[in-house]
Amino acid sequence: MGCQKSSCKVLSKNKIKLIRSLDLKKNRSATGLFIAQGKKLVFDLLESDIVASELFCTRQAASEIVSHQADLKIESVDKEDLARISFLKTTPDIVGIFRIPKSVIDWDEIKDQLTLVLDAIQDPGNMGTIVRLADWFGIRNIICSDDSADLFNPKVVQSTMGALARVKVHYVSLSKFMNQAKELAIPIYGTFMEGENLYKCDLTVNGLVVMGNEGNGISENTTAFISRKITIPSYPPGVATSESLNVAMAASIICSEFRRRSICKE
Amino acid sequence: MGCQKSSCKVLSKNKIKLIRSLDLKKNRSATGLFIAQGKKLVFDLLESDIVASELFCTRQAASEIVSHQADLKIESVDKEDLARISFLKTTPDIVGIFRIPKSVIDWDEIKDQLTLVLDAIQDPGNMGTIVRLADWFGIRNIICSDDSADLFNPKVVQSTMGALARVKVHYVSLSKFMNQAKELAIPIYGTFMEGENLYKCDLTVNGLVVMGNEGNGISENTTAFISRKITIPSYPPGVATSESLNVAMAASIICSEFRRRSICKE
Repeated sequence: MGCQKSSCKVLSKNKIKLIRSLDLKKNRSATGLFIAQGKKLVFDLLESDIVASELFCTRQAASEIVSHQADLKIESVDKEDLARISFLKTTPDIVGIFRIPKSVIDWDEIKDQLTLVLDAIQDPGNMGTIVRLADWFGIRNIICSDDSADLFNPKVVQSTMGALARVKVHYVSLSKFMNQAKELAIPIYGTFMEGENLYKCDLTVNGLVVMGNEGNGISENTTAFISRKITIPSYPPGVATSESLNVAMAASIICSEFRRRSICKE
Repeated sequence: MGCQKSSCKVLSKNKIKLIRSLDLKKNRSATGLFIAQGKKLVFDLLESDIVASELFCTRQAASEIVSHQADLKIESVDKEDLARISFLKTTPDIVGIFRIPKSVIDWDEIKDQLTLVLDAIQDPGNMGTIVRLADWFGIRNIICSDDSADLFNPKVVQSTMGALARVKVHYVSLSKFMNQAKELAIPIYGTFMEGENLYKCDLTVNGLVVMGNEGNGISENTTAFISRKITIPSYPPGVATSESLNVAMAASIICSEFRRRSICKE
């Protein structure tokens, strides 16, 4: 399993410390780096525009790496060293250190496409699930308020299962972003108890869909920008039920309905 | 905040130990009890058919309790004692010990209604979210294979946010259950890559919707019973995407589509 010492790099204590420090946001911010673990995820990222800084892997995995990056640094290391730098229970064959991509908002895309806006989503699990959802439904951009959970937390990175390679996630000042969207007359959807029935209302092909914080919903500041209030009707109408759906479930139902309309029109 | 010692029961060490032991499934099975924490959840349960065994609460909370159970045991205890028996970070005003309800499957309901079937769902978070989803969409029964995550785990109980009071969750031998459903000619839906397009296929008002394990999907044994294979189409068609949606997201999209059909027909 392990590779021979003669041909393997042995990781220095400092290197191991640096990689393990990427567990914390302050260290990710300071270095501009994040960690991705496991073949599937690392290989998905290597196919994307996200730039790899260094890869650490078994010799076997090294032989399978395909990358368009000319200067990619690949280190074959022992399984023991991989265990030291990984956060997973089962040691992966490959650990990648990647550069956190610079967020550049393409307003032409935002104008024409469907985009998710996350207003202070706190749960890392929800964040990962929503990125996977966006990927499934071809949503290319997710806009997050500055105080949302961090996508580059190792747990969130893993939970996106590679979707991170295909969905651009931007952390922004939400009021500034929403102002600009409003000026461009982009439809802005948000879910409220008293909104229009999701299944019966008109839906545009483009627009922003705002999802609110787990406990407090959409903030007052953001609510001011919502031009289309919608609601997911509970069933049967008028019967007592849970007060709300989990935010990731609500997002999935709304995105599904947007895409259903397009698919059924085709 | 605390109540005076003279009027408050002080909990014995044994009592505290017994309550805290309900964290483990073997102890819940041995005693037939589970714990629910916080006013909203306990009050929701008191309105349901689930039988309370004992309630521990502040004097203030005690005065707000409304119950149809004549013999309900209510103990006013100190905040410190509530902290000792609670699993939450913030000490709740009320902790309820309830009896795990006996599972009685009403086949008339199963025949006529929409029912979720969970085949070895492992993640307690998914379990809680799916119960909330079922509540939202008026799904009265969830059938779980014996090896699914336990609904009565304190974390799952809390995450259902009261939905547990309105949705009956049954743990069964799945093959036995599915056999009977087949004999009754109940439509059995399951998601597969090669299934019919969810948005375009016929959907019955009644039926079982089977959701598979997080890693392995629907088991081979259960697959044999599926009479209606469906798929949630990704978007746009033919573009590379995540391999799958999270099981709770998939469940929400499917249940939403079933209910949309009913709502839009009304």
